[in-house]
Amino acid sequence: MRNIKLTIQYKGTNYCGWQIQNRVKKTSSRNEKTIQGEIERVLKKVLKEKVKLIGACRTDSGVHALSQVANFKTKSNLHIDNIHRALNSLLPKDIAIKSIKEEKEDFHSRFDAKGKIYQYKILNLSTKDVFENDYAWRIIFDLNRKKIEQAARHIIGRHNFSSFSSAGSKRKNVICDIKRIDIRKKRDIYIVEVEGDRFLYRMVRNIVGTLVEIGRGRFTPRDIKRVLSKRDRRFAGPCAPASGLILQRVMYN
Amino acid sequence: MRNIKLTIQYKGTNYCGWQIQNRVKKTSSRNEKTIQGEIERVLKKVLKEKVKLIGACRTDSGVHALSQVANFKTKSNLHIDNIHRALNSLLPKDIAIKSIKEEKEDFHSRFDAKGKIYQYKILNLSTKDVFENDYAWRIIFDLNRKKIEQAARHIIGRHNFSSFSSAGSKRKNVICDIKRIDIRKKRDIYIVEVEGDRFLYRMVRNIVGTLVEIGRGRFTPRDIKRVLSKRDRRFAGPCAPASGLILQRVMYN
Repeated sequence: MRNIKLTIQYKGTNYCGWQIQNRVKKTSSRNEKTIQGEIERVLKKVLKEKVKLIGACRTDSGVHALSQVANFKTKSNLHIDNIHRALNSLLPKDIAIKSIKEEKEDFHSRFDAKGKIYQYKILNLSTKDVFENDYAWRIIFDLNRKKIEQAARHIIGRHNFSSFSSAGSKRKNVICDIKRIDIRKKRDIYIVEVEGDRFLYRMVRNIVGTLVEIGRGRFTPRDIKRVLSKRDRRFAGPCAPASGLILQRVMYN
Repeated sequence: MRNIKLTIQYKGTNYCGWQIQNRVKKTSSRNEKTIQGEIERVLKKVLKEKVKLIGACRTDSGVHALSQVANFKTKSNLHIDNIHRALNSLLPKDIAIKSIKEEKEDFHSRFDAKGKIYQYKILNLSTKDVFENDYAWRIIFDLNRKKIEQAARHIIGRHNFSSFSSAGSKRKNVICDIKRIDIRKKRDIYIVEVEGDRFLYRMVRNIVGTLVEIGRGRFTPRDIKRVLSKRDRRFAGPCAPASGLILQRVMYN
């Protein structure tokens, strides 16, 4: 069996996230397409066999990826470049395979990941902006950059992140090691870049929601330490919208 | 009568350009919404009267605007800030009014314009890119930046631009004064920025199409002088796709 690794870029706006939904059928007008589902569908056409795609991260509905990683096993002997070309021509325009590579047999995109980098984009602007609509959270109140930076520093390190994990998570291990948080600002745009060994469900969005509360003066920068120590989601700020989040990179050894 | 000036931002992907189409009714599945049409429809709701919106440029289907300018006359005595807020909340998410201003009675967004700046984005990349899809022309061949820059220099100045004007134009005056063309490159992205007093129909896209032919080695940089002197559209390169073009600014005294 060949083990093939894909590096995938996608615009998440029109998808129900990465993972195929195993829900009971229901009457719903909602578009239930997923990134994993679309790629598996196309892989089946190209390889003439059904394969299971394993993704490094289960991004939520509306979240984007600059560089998601996934792998699948196949008996097909199609040349790797032909698989690459066929996937990109058959996939919808908002999903792209940026690179493809043969991996050793035991490579596992999720278990082998050593860390991840996410970026969250905030547009601090009072008027509507058509180009950042799908890619940023627009905040109309003035944000205090210094306070956001001060607060972010308290997040760095190895902590119990229960306070920043949304309900719906089944993870027992709630300890994560946040290596860095960078806050960059260019004109009206803030970029919050977070690197960690692992992340809990909606953790980045809950952290950003809390940083914004601090930036607009509702919490103080030191409050974030208190929130962390409570180990209870109810003490943190709101969950920032999905559109601002992008999975930037998955790291391996 | 009040004369009100709007500065408008839009993503042109889902519109048939700026101008309301005065076509004979026909059975068509194509979306025939226009930017002008959408704004006039919303203005009628807000002002309780039908107004005629005059735009500075008639951008084509799929072309974007960072800053289009338009004006309309109204008898309404609604406060300008209320008109602004109402427009932005009622307009679709891909059209935004960035600013609104009372102008003197004889201001005319098209006749008073002293110049325009357009940007064209080229993505020089062999693989698909989901984020630049609607905003750039993807060229998979290696482009020679130096040759493009050399060729662009020959465009600057006051010339007869017939060779770069697509059929469908009714303009008799084919003389334009191009003040500058800047070619910027950042990673895989080229930005061609053109400033001129006026532009003929599809002129920027025809110039960019020709520059790309030169960049990939089909024409030489000096050929662009020959093309200009022919005053015949058939001698220039192909028309670059609409998606890469954005109206950056309209200038007034």
